Amino acid sequence: MIVDLLGNLSERIKGKLGPFILVIGTTDVSLIPGISFAGASPELTMFTPAADAEFLMTGKCKVIDSVPVTPDGIPTPALITRASLSFLKVTRLIANAGSRVNPKIPFINLNGEPGKDIRYGGLRREVGEGILEQGVILGENLKSDIIYIGESVPGGTTTAAAVLSGLGYDGVSLVSSSSPVNPKELKKRVVDQALKSAPKETLERIFWLSDPVLIAVAGIALGFKGVTVLSGGTQMAAVAAILKELDKGKLSNVGIATTRWIINDSSSNLYSLAKEIGINLTYSNVSFAESKFNGLRAYEQGYVKEGVGAGGSMVMSLSSGVSSQELVRRIEEVYSSLINA
Amino acid sequence: MIVDLLGNLSERIKGKLGPFILVIGTTDVSLIPGISFAGASPELTMFTPAADAEFLMTGKCKVIDSVPVTPDGIPTPALITRASLSFLKVTRLIANAGSRVNPKIPFINLNGEPGKDIRYGGLRREVGEGILEQGVILGENLKSDIIYIGESVPGGTTTAAAVLSGLGYDGVSLVSSSSPVNPKELKKRVVDQALKSAPKETLERIFWLSDPVLIAVAGIALGFKGVTVLSGGTQMAAVAAILKELDKGKLSNVGIATTRWIINDSSSNLYSLAKEIGINLTYSNVSFAESKFNGLRAYEQGYVKEGVGAGGSMVMSLSSGVSSQELVRRIEEVYSSLINA
Repeated sequence: MIVDLLGNLSERIKGKLGPFILVIGTTDVSLIPGISFAGASPELTMFTPAADAEFLMTGKCKVIDSVPVTPDGIPTPALITRASLSFLKVTRLIANAGSRVNPKIPFINLNGEPGKDIRYGGLRREVGEGILEQGVILGENLKSDIIYIGESVPGGTTTAAAVLSGLGYDGVSLVSSSSPVNPKELKKRVVDQALKSAPKETLERIFWLSDPVLIAVAGIALGFKGVTVLSGGTQMAAVAAILKELDKGKLSNVGIATTRWIINDSSSNLYSLAKEIGINLTYSNVSFAESKFNGLRAYEQGYVKEGVGAGGSMVMSLSSGVSSQELVRRIEEVYSSLINA
Repeated sequence: MIVDLLGNLSERIKGKLGPFILVIGTTDVSLIPGISFAGASPELTMFTPAADAEFLMTGKCKVIDSVPVTPDGIPTPALITRASLSFLKVTRLIANAGSRVNPKIPFINLNGEPGKDIRYGGLRREVGEGILEQGVILGENLKSDIIYIGESVPGGTTTAAAVLSGLGYDGVSLVSSSSPVNPKELKKRVVDQALKSAPKETLERIFWLSDPVLIAVAGIALGFKGVTVLSGGTQMAAVAAILKELDKGKLSNVGIATTRWIINDSSSNLYSLAKEIGINLTYSNVSFAESKFNGLRAYEQGYVKEGVGAGGSMVMSLSSGVSSQELVRRIEEVYSSLINA
């Protein structure tokens, strides 16, 4: 079941299929110990986006031996996305906005660079402008009624918090985490330090506080003519905030589709962010509470929650007539094949 | 108007839209003086695929100042493709199989390498296998009823002749050229020398004689479930011959769509090649004889003829109800904006 919290996205996307684009990238923010859980260790977070991309496209990872996991061993949400899209005849594309590790599968090169630690500037102006421009060109060349865009960028909720704060929103207190224990204090220190040194000019400020993925997603949405479904959690609120700065009118054709776990997360508030920004918000009301797998039931305790477009891909599947039960069964099949591999 | 010469491709594609993928790459064969006309000079042929890709996606070239031209100044067929696709809501993607110059736009990286001079081996086995495998993965992830694949690889008719000869077909005498004076003697010397040193094992033999683009196009077609329209001239016959070696059953779901200028070319015989291989063949019956532009009327004298998926993109446009007159008018508009730029 799909639930509209803001706007009527579920009606506008009903029965419409379009390409799913996973935008990947890295930021050195994820190397700060304790800030990201999108990898078994800070160093391994650098492999997560490439491995997610490989898993989505082929069902296997190449840059690492198995799928990305949290430090607790909970596997990547890429498995939800792969399972959800398996019901649908939709093209899957990987766009690399700037990653320290390239996936060993075909990917769209946005000619970007990995993001640096935002305390000292995430993206230089020319890098940010380049990623934005390349995203726009890609978006212009994707012709469809609708596109879904997901993200994989460890450390991404921290850069999202920084961008949101830099644009005047309540950042750190509202963004989520892939851990049930959202490391707010640490995020706040990083964001505060980044803000202290950030330039005043809007675009330079955004680049300084951002990772490459936020910029690329915004660029693709700007270039695309049609409905853009930002498939993710609070990071997509940061994208929406960027879009609002660059082209306010665009927001009417954009919505965020996320998971129930993000909506139920007491450590973040995507609803309040989306409302303040003025963007449509919808979520997939799918539960893993009854799953026979610990690694999936963990989502109900706040592990992982979202990523790799999990929420949006479930929404696309549900909006095409797939039931929640079928969806969970398929996700369990993918999960089971993973742990038996 | 669309004409079926072999099979009934025109019926099977009627009214169906699907993504257009331009596969680009270079081979050092084009550096041999006199062999390629896909660039103002042998050195400039290295920029042609990237510039074609840029023009297709944005209407402008970045790696060179203006669009690629033949040594006589006749512009790239990319203008036909861009004009034809402008009528259609279809996604345009660039896949880079291995090019010395990368386009400054988003492109799908197939993690390949530029092709070497085939007299000494075009692609090492592991490079060829890598490109093939990446092409398959890309094809598997493109979900649609139909795809159109075009190519831009200067020197490509010579590598096509070599691959065809290496697989037992009449190569040099049947392949075309982007010049009205097809340099057959030179091509024959290059192909003969390549064949003399080529390995006997089929796959290694194909890689040795090939450029990266032929392999990538074959890989995408292999991976794709649906109708693949190989949009090109005699180079696409080489792709079909490769497909026949790798998966004979595949050919029933594949067809070549080319231009009238290739079909009318007295220096080549795509019909005879396609018939021997057993592949569907269709062409767009569009003439530039009445055009007000010299650079377009030149096609009627055998200049350029095909490339960048010109024939296939016209076929897709015609099959969607666009008339030949509308098509020529739009091509003239694009041409006119070029020469006035």
